[in-house]
This record gives sequence, C-alpha cells and structure tokens, in this order.
Amino acid sequence: MGKDGFRIALVQNQIQPTKKDNLKRAQSLLEEAGRGGAALAVLPELFDAPYDAPDVVPLADPLPNGPTGSMLAETAARTGLHIAGSMVELGQDGRAYNAGFIFDSKGELIHKHRKIHLYDVDIPGGIRFFESDFFGAGESYGAVETELGILGMVVCHDMRFCELFRPQVLAGAELIIVPAAFNMTSGPAHWEILVRTRAMENTVYLSACGGAPHPEVGYPYWGHSTLADPYGEIKAQAKGREEEIVYSEFDRQRLGEVRQALPVLKQRRPEVYSRHWKELSEK
Amino acid sequence: MGKDGFRIALVQNQIQPTKKDNLKRAQSLLEEAGRGGAALAVLPELFDAPYDAPDVVPLADPLPNGPTGSMLAETAARTGLHIAGSMVELGQDGRAYNAGFIFDSKGELIHKHRKIHLYDVDIPGGIRFFESDFFGAGESYGAVETELGILGMVVCHDMRFCELFRPQVLAGAELIIVPAAFNMTSGPAHWEILVRTRAMENTVYLSACGGAPHPEVGYPYWGHSTLADPYGEIKAQAKGREEEIVYSEFDRQRLGEVRQALPVLKQRRPEVYSRHWKELSEK
Repeated sequence: MGKDGFRIALVQNQIQPTKKDNLKRAQSLLEEAGRGGAALAVLPELFDAPYDAPDVVPLADPLPNGPTGSMLAETAARTGLHIAGSMVELGQDGRAYNAGFIFDSKGELIHKHRKIHLYDVDIPGGIRFFESDFFGAGESYGAVETELGILGMVVCHDMRFCELFRPQVLAGAELIIVPAAFNMTSGPAHWEILVRTRAMENTVYLSACGGAPHPEVGYPYWGHSTLADPYGEIKAQAKGREEEIVYSEFDRQRLGEVRQALPVLKQRRPEVYSRHWKELSEK
Repeated sequence: MGKDGFRIALVQNQIQPTKKDNLKRAQSLLEEAGRGGAALAVLPELFDAPYDAPDVVPLADPLPNGPTGSMLAETAARTGLHIAGSMVELGQDGRAYNAGFIFDSKGELIHKHRKIHLYDVDIPGGIRFFESDFFGAGESYGAVETELGILGMVVCHDMRFCELFRPQVLAGAELIIVPAAFNMTSGPAHWEILVRTRAMENTVYLSACGGAPHPEVGYPYWGHSTLADPYGEIKAQAKGREEEIVYSEFDRQRLGEVRQALPVLKQRRPEVYSRHWKELSEK
C-alpha cells in the first residue's frame, strides 16, 4: 500500500561540465536530502551530463552497472533514500539513451523509463535541438509498485503527451516523477501549466525536477522544480534557476480527498473513446 | 481548406432567469458580434437557461427545431455568422441533454456534441453539483469540416478529459470550441491552465466561452472567456465575470508555424501507446 505520507526532495543540481563532477555534486546533494528527512529524492533529466549534444553521447554508461548507477545504488542504500532521475545510458545495443530510473532504499534499480518522445524542436527566435540525432527512443512505459506507493514516470518532453499519463494513473500511480530539463524557451512558456495540468487532470501528485545552469555549460536550464498536488496546486517550487533542494510532502489522505471530490478517473467514458483510440493506436 | 484567418467573438452573455430573456439577450449580442466583424460567435454552456438544476430540465426543446434552435438558425443566416455554444436539448427519447451545437452561416445545424462527461462533483468548501441527476450523457464526438476550417468541440467538464482532444485534432481540427460554465470553485483553480494546456499540448486554437452571473440566478459563473493560440498563449480574455464580447483572431499561418516549431502531433508514438490504450478502451 505504501506510506501514508513521506517527504520528497527535488534536487535541482547545477549541471557541471564533466561527468565526474556531476556524480560528486549529485552525491553530496543527495546526502543532504537524506539528512533533510526525504524518503524520495528526484534529480533532473540527465543529471550526470551536460545537455550539450552530441558531446553527451560518450558519457553514456550501462544502467545499473556503470559509474552513475553504482553511485546511485550506493547512495540510496547508505542514505535509505529512493532516488529517481534520468541519466545517459549506454544500451546493450551500443546506443545512448536518455534513461529515467528509480532506485529503492536498498539500492536496487526497480524502474527504468527510456524517454519515449525525444526533444526535436526548432522554434524561431527560441531553441533549436534535435535529441534524436544522438539518442535512441524508449519503447515502453508503466507504473511501478514501491515501498512508498505506486510511482509513475515520464521524462521531460514526454510530459507533453497525455497518452503516457492516463495508463500509469489508471494502473494505480499516486505520484508521477518527471526528471526534466526545460529551457529558457519552453520553461517560461509551458513548464508550470503542464506540471499543474498533468497533476490535476489525472488527480495525481507530480514531482518535476529541472536542472540549474552552469556558466560553462551551454544548455539554458530553466530550473523551477515544482511539486504539484492532485488538485493542481503548487505545494513547493524552486525560487528560480539556481541550485536548490526543494522539499515537499506526499500525502495519501489528500490524494484520496481530491479523488473523491473530483472523480475524473471514475468519470472516464472508455466505451465512448474506444472507437477513436483503437483506430489511433493501430495507426 | 477553410479561411486563412477570421474573427472570433466569445459572447460571454449574462445568463437570465428565464429562457425567453436568454434568447432575446443572446440574439442581441450575436447581432453585435456580427457588426463587430466576427465570422464565428461562441456562446457559453447552456446559454439559453439558468444552470440551476433541476429547474433547467423543463426548458429543454428539440434541436434544431425548437425555440432556441430557430433563433440560432435565423440569426446565423441573417448575420452570416457561424454560431456555436451549448443549449438544453430535448432528445427524441424524452431526456434532456446538454448539447453543444454549431450552426453555419446559412443557418444549418452542422454539428452537435452532447456533453459526454457530466459535471458530478462534491468539493468540500466548494461546489456540490450532480448534473447526471437531470441530463443524459453524450455518446460520440468528432471534428467537423466547415467553411471556416475544421472545428472540434467539447463542453465544459469534458475539457478535463484529454481523450476527447487528441482524436479531434488528429482528424484535422484547427480550432476547438468549448462552451463552458466554470464556477467560483473550478474557475480560479483550473480554468486558465486547462484552456492553455489543451491548446498547447495539441497545437490547436482553443476558444472557451463562459457565462456571466445574474443576481437572480444561483449558479456562480466564472466568466473569463479565453482564446488561446496553438502555443498556449492567451490572445484574448474577458476582463472578469461581467457580460462582455471578447474578440480575437484565428490565424492559419500562426497555426502552421507553431506546428512546425513544436511538432508534437507528428512526434506521437502510437505504436508505443497501443498496448495500454487498447486495454483501456476495451474495459
């Protein structure tokens, strides 16, 4: 059933130019989150690497048996934290992946979510970025039962696709984790309304963690890590783009109250949707 | 193909205690919208009746061949407006429905969307309302080709269900019309982020029209009629809850630019969703 309540730390770490420094810095912040009473720590997207394609690809290592996974497993077991985030994974096929992960408090990798929708955009006057030039794409998603409760996950650009949220929430997810790296284009435009709407339309907790920019890393991280409750209210948010650990709470009683007051999950009409969605999913 | 651009009027009419007064008032405002250069006028949810259940049920009349439909058809043909909104429909089965409609500029009823998700909520300290006590629910939805372009529709509480948007947009909808009656609980909490997110996640124009409250009508209409562009930016919004006609523009060039810059509709991965969505739609 999971815990009735627990503390969540959104670890908005400053992304360092080297992998070694990222692991060191994240480890130190995770230890701080553990001392701060968190049961779950969430890191940003690609917390272990600067998001400067294609230089990010050579930093990939296997998950969980590589330098990044080893640090996460060891830190989780030592601090008793569940640790989630995303990293540059080297797949067995030799390709690099943007891989979300959840390690439990024993240091076991209990969930992996390779980013399904790669960030390929070209916004005039804004950002130009083609993640599919250097990453492979994920092929599956789902919720996972943990000691804390049932957790779901999407990674960054995945957040724009409602198709990933409903199935995880209907499979029981009570908290969706979103390692992210929105930027100075997408952040001001869409970050907060997406976080709040995904939480509220699914009546689910949503913890979305972004990175903090570094002067020597080109990618303009938006930060603003946010935890929204199942009513879409912001319970905690980073002050801005600087490095910060943001604490908030998961409250199962609140989850139940919102789902009773606003029973959208029960009000769904799958028999009405089915004709449209069967067609669409068979395309 | 529809028009490259046209003017939209969100007619945030003050809902009167009697049906007769609502028809009279709406007609006058629609005429004003026509003089204001609109090609499409959008009325709120149940524009013809105070939303005070169950007193609303006896006001139902057939669509299009009743007093409300006749007024709409005649006004559309006379002004050259396309007119959308929702009304209390008396079905051939004798039941009342909350029915969205679109009349074209010849006065023909070209689309009907009976509200699929009835508003049944009980929010402690907020609103208590059970629409399914007095309305039947809609059983289908879809986009419709018009002289203006391909239009989609949902009614009010339907807006919380992403399942209705994607199929209409993938069928070509360029503008989704939302006759609505959010209230003093749901309005401040969710109205604006829902309107903006539905537009942005689907890269589609969204015109959402709410009602204005009347001292003798108990329902606390939120007003705040809003038009969002495909990037989720608010192009026009009512000043508040008072009666107002809000004008904005549909711009097909902007639609194309946003869909090129942020190609989320092309980035969908139906082959990845299918396992989950087939299961869900067969439940």
